Amino acid sequence: MNKRIKTCLKALKENSLDAILLSDWANISYLSGFRKAEGYLLVTKTEGLFYFTSKLYREEAKKIKLWNTVDCNLGIFNSVSKIINRYQLKTVGFEAKKITVFEKNLLSEILSKTVKLVPTLDFVMKLRAVKSALEISYIKKAVEITKEALDFTAEIYDQVESEKLLSVEIEKFMRIKGDNRIAFDTIVASGKNSSLAHHSPKDTKLYKKFFIIDLGAKYYGYCADLTRVFFCGKMPPLYKKVYDTVKKAQELAVNKIRPGVRVCDVDKVARDFIDRAGWGKNFSHGLGHGVGLEVHEMPYLNGSDKTILQEGMVVTVEPAVYLKNKFGVRLEDTVLVGAKKGERL
Amino acid sequence: MNKRIKTCLKALKENSLDAILLSDWANISYLSGFRKAEGYLLVTKTEGLFYFTSKLYREEAKKIKLWNTVDCNLGIFNSVSKIINRYQLKTVGFEAKKITVFEKNLLSEILSKTVKLVPTLDFVMKLRAVKSALEISYIKKAVEITKEALDFTAEIYDQVESEKLLSVEIEKFMRIKGDNRIAFDTIVASGKNSSLAHHSPKDTKLYKKFFIIDLGAKYYGYCADLTRVFFCGKMPPLYKKVYDTVKKAQELAVNKIRPGVRVCDVDKVARDFIDRAGWGKNFSHGLGHGVGLEVHEMPYLNGSDKTILQEGMVVTVEPAVYLKNKFGVRLEDTVLVGAKKGERL
Repeated sequence: MNKRIKTCLKALKENSLDAILLSDWANISYLSGFRKAEGYLLVTKTEGLFYFTSKLYREEAKKIKLWNTVDCNLGIFNSVSKIINRYQLKTVGFEAKKITVFEKNLLSEILSKTVKLVPTLDFVMKLRAVKSALEISYIKKAVEITKEALDFTAEIYDQVESEKLLSVEIEKFMRIKGDNRIAFDTIVASGKNSSLAHHSPKDTKLYKKFFIIDLGAKYYGYCADLTRVFFCGKMPPLYKKVYDTVKKAQELAVNKIRPGVRVCDVDKVARDFIDRAGWGKNFSHGLGHGVGLEVHEMPYLNGSDKTILQEGMVVTVEPAVYLKNKFGVRLEDTVLVGAKKGERL
Repeated sequence: MNKRIKTCLKALKENSLDAILLSDWANISYLSGFRKAEGYLLVTKTEGLFYFTSKLYREEAKKIKLWNTVDCNLGIFNSVSKIINRYQLKTVGFEAKKITVFEKNLLSEILSKTVKLVPTLDFVMKLRAVKSALEISYIKKAVEITKEALDFTAEIYDQVESEKLLSVEIEKFMRIKGDNRIAFDTIVASGKNSSLAHHSPKDTKLYKKFFIIDLGAKYYGYCADLTRVFFCGKMPPLYKKVYDTVKKAQELAVNKIRPGVRVCDVDKVARDFIDRAGWGKNFSHGLGHGVGLEVHEMPYLNGSDKTILQEGMVVTVEPAVYLKNKFGVRLEDTVLVGAKKGERL
């Protein structure tokens, strides 16, 4: 049994649950290493693990030795119910953030009335926040590939016509070097488009004098997430002032990172600095988020979250200033919480 | 007000709802044309449409004239509640298949106790099943690009080393010709891998004598979905027999398609044929599915669904035979339900 499963079993005990039915692919993937998780995993306190999936994935699932792959020919929830009855599990957790109302109702109807379904929040998600050395090595490699893709961008952008075509080339580069799938759709936002935090690159002409790229490769399933500003020629004073402000805010936040600090305090140091420069209202999102199997995961760095940073967490630090209909600047690094300080990967 | 909203309002009336809160991006996109729907849309019977989203998308959402974009600075559900109270909406539907238990519970807690939340299933989804002439023209174009990508594959596969690299090249081709985003991750499954219905192309060497490609471009947000078998050299007798069986099953199913026929009967004609050839157990999934803004949508062609085909529906027909540890054959076309018969696009 792997260490992650052991930790999960401990959490079951602490929550007085006989079992938990996981429905989130990333949580299932984390516990099992099975990267193709389109199914449900029942982790029981004493009877082992049971995986339920459609015929499409069953052959592949059977290769995983950690669990019993259940043949669900009468429907997935019927099979779940059968296992729950067989082992007389009475209190079964489910992932309230990762199951639809429809699925939950269907499950409730099928299960025996004596089974108590208990909503859980972030049960496995919390375990995922602190990364192992192996996970960190994968994230490092993903960041490395992403940085190479930025170098590649610098080489080619002059010959590329549109935002879309640049995103196509960058993603091809990252897929060849890393996993076939990348962490998220690359944002290429040039000129005024840079004032939109989540601009989708379309056939818009690439304005080569000023553009933002937000990109991330994957490696062994683990994500990177970086944002850079490309600027060509002399920066007009306003651009320079915004850029320097965001840059400094990022530096302050990264310097604040260390085990024991609350995430809201890291957010605050960057936000206060931007606020004092007069652009507080133009920094319209949180400072960052955890990165791992998912590109957005715990912990979330924002003003209201009091989570305490621990060694081994990996988070983005991405302050920004968006000036409506003008331009925007966002700078983002992926940062490891080291033993004593934050370390940009 | 567009025709789709009118149909939606009619459905509200028929279901005795004062409003419906939509949470599914494709349903919101269908009603509004807003392709970047990360938010919630409240469609009210008499007070208009209200869109709730995070700051990240608000500027773009405000460009949509069809709805009022609500500033949700106190949280999205608080703003939803405010609008519901302002117009004294008493019975509000929600999308049970498209909202998590957590979100639904949060919403319930915030809403006034006098508001009745009513689960709905496939409320807008059903409207989406029958396509307009414009939607069909987009799907046709997406299919056209996908076919060009297949021609391109035939040209290049000989110079490509791995399944993954072939998928990278194919996807680049489709993105340049169509939308920046494709319909789904391309499946390239060569040799034994073809026996897995949803194989993910990795660095596995491309076995050029026999491989399956399942791919789809997008055009103006609309998907295509095709599968072809590539074979090089003389087909061994078993391969040929399986191929001919799947081919014939597909032909029978496409010929069965016309308005008024139940989808289960279309599934049956293909399944019976494969069954008589002795491979019934090796055809381990449904015959097909609707295609539109999503690559899998209503109607679903399988043995238990009694939905009646209507003119303007667009569905895939994809019979298959998978021989474990040997190989598999799947052939898939996107088919329009015409006035009198099925028409392969």
